Amino acid sequence: MPSDALYKFRSLITELPLIDKSSAGAAATWDSVLTKPAGALGRLEDLAVWMSGWQGKHPPTYDAPQIVIFAGNHGVCDQGISAFPKEVTAQMVKNFQGGGAAINQLADAFGASFAVLPLALESPTLDFTKGPAMNEEECCEALQSGWDSVSQDTDLLVVGEMGIGNTTVAAAVSAAVFGGTGADWAGPGTGLTMEGVRKKAEVIDAGLLLHSEILNDPLLVLQHLGGREIAAMVGAILAARHNKIPVILDGFVVGAAAAVLKKANSSALDHCVAGHMSAEPGHELLLRHLEKEPLLTLRMRLGEGSGAALALGIIKGALATHNGMASFTDAGVSGESSS
Amino acid sequence: MPSDALYKFRSLITELPLIDKSSAGAAATWDSVLTKPAGALGRLEDLAVWMSGWQGKHPPTYDAPQIVIFAGNHGVCDQGISAFPKEVTAQMVKNFQGGGAAINQLADAFGASFAVLPLALESPTLDFTKGPAMNEEECCEALQSGWDSVSQDTDLLVVGEMGIGNTTVAAAVSAAVFGGTGADWAGPGTGLTMEGVRKKAEVIDAGLLLHSEILNDPLLVLQHLGGREIAAMVGAILAARHNKIPVILDGFVVGAAAAVLKKANSSALDHCVAGHMSAEPGHELLLRHLEKEPLLTLRMRLGEGSGAALALGIIKGALATHNGMASFTDAGVSGESSS
Repeated sequence: MPSDALYKFRSLITELPLIDKSSAGAAATWDSVLTKPAGALGRLEDLAVWMSGWQGKHPPTYDAPQIVIFAGNHGVCDQGISAFPKEVTAQMVKNFQGGGAAINQLADAFGASFAVLPLALESPTLDFTKGPAMNEEECCEALQSGWDSVSQDTDLLVVGEMGIGNTTVAAAVSAAVFGGTGADWAGPGTGLTMEGVRKKAEVIDAGLLLHSEILNDPLLVLQHLGGREIAAMVGAILAARHNKIPVILDGFVVGAAAAVLKKANSSALDHCVAGHMSAEPGHELLLRHLEKEPLLTLRMRLGEGSGAALALGIIKGALATHNGMASFTDAGVSGESSS
Repeated sequence: MPSDALYKFRSLITELPLIDKSSAGAAATWDSVLTKPAGALGRLEDLAVWMSGWQGKHPPTYDAPQIVIFAGNHGVCDQGISAFPKEVTAQMVKNFQGGGAAINQLADAFGASFAVLPLALESPTLDFTKGPAMNEEECCEALQSGWDSVSQDTDLLVVGEMGIGNTTVAAAVSAAVFGGTGADWAGPGTGLTMEGVRKKAEVIDAGLLLHSEILNDPLLVLQHLGGREIAAMVGAILAARHNKIPVILDGFVVGAAAAVLKKANSSALDHCVAGHMSAEPGHELLLRHLEKEPLLTLRMRLGEGSGAALALGIIKGALATHNGMASFTDAGVSGESSS
């Protein structure tokens, strides 16, 4: 391994495969002969073309959607920035494994496989107001865990997360990558008071100040201000890109992982769609920076990949119509030009 | 039958069953102990409580969702207000029956039963710029057809429509019920030019002028300016209310049917949720008058119940989480108060 252990991932982010224009074109052509006025299915039409292009085949498939949840613990919780105790992360991992969480029900409802990957929960990252959250090796291990978690057999990936305190971490990463102060990015998370949000913003500002030397390098931001679950999601989103797997992004914390990639390579999220806009206030700002229009806006703010999992239904509907509808010719329906 | 043949439906609209507060309360109580921060599932939580309350049971079910599409033809097409010829209505009915339309694929994708009801397609309504679109008997027959189409075994209803020219009819009904001119409510429908939209607005204004004497009576508006498929949807939405069946409203034309009910009784749509906001410009205005926040905004404008059918996935997800999640106690997860 080179002295810069992040070198491998830097290369993987730089050398990205592009969309398969031939498959996308085949989807657009097929869409144009289906029994509906042109454009009448709105974003469903765009989604079918996008899926086809990034899967590199036509027709696009929804056969093996995969949901992977990454869990991490954060030293910055010692600053009192969460309404829940750190132990809840491991408790919720057990709940995921037992099938009792929201995401388990959504995975079943939309026919997706589900896995949860706890990342060294017994060893929280360091408090980023005291030093780098991770050393280079820890960060690389987490990136690799995420990369390895993506099945090559899947045709659509949802990444989600669980980690008490990680909206603070996500806000710090977002501020580091896209600019602004703690106050611009801090929100109530799972239920902070206004006073708690002010404290959270101060903690973020302290982290930004301490690590001001590395803020222009998104992978160093990930290492110094991020967390293991966020690094793992960076690895997973990147693995999906290299394996022709489109991705549905979830909420604010997933968005912070996406932000690292977007800053490192402006086209790194072209294979991703935003599943929803979270009620966490920073997510709207983050989506603007990511240049993503969310599919759903339902005031959800749970994490766990839940908003993205719900958006699986939209993709499922988009492909069902694209792949199953009759053409004007087959159905004997007069097209617009015959009027 | 009394001299006013609409009397029966007037009574049915006046004497509406109310929400079952006990079932809604049981749902709200159960929601409060599930393994998530309070409110974190956003509108999904509200939907579970709403479904429980209107189904009159807890837990709420998603066992037999039903989609019914009503098709009608419109004399006002003679004014040249549609980009497609009238024959397309019957052709699309055949496509629905053959399983080739968008709505067929969405019904399959979300496990809903599907039926299409063509309403005297060979006898279009009269051109409303020349006289009443329907006589009283025709309007009542259509209301009754809609009423009869709703299965008492269903637990969630989607009503949809197909009818060349019916965005003009829907705009006229909306203007009559909620005020405004043709220009306020006319849009491109399935693909009119700007010049076509101007012509459409004039046709609507001519209808409003001709029938100015009856605009204060929503059921007479339905008869004079509406169409058979719109009357049938009024009957179906009403039947659902009387049979403890929640309803997902589709786009602009379904919204015009809902408008008739809303004007006749301001609480008549409490058992309805707006499935989506259509790209047809009048729909945003209509939803404001109906006081409904759409679940989806995906620039769809197909009709056929397609936007509402896609929203079935949201309801499915809402009930899956509500009914399937573990409680804090069962999962051994620390609640917020333990921190």
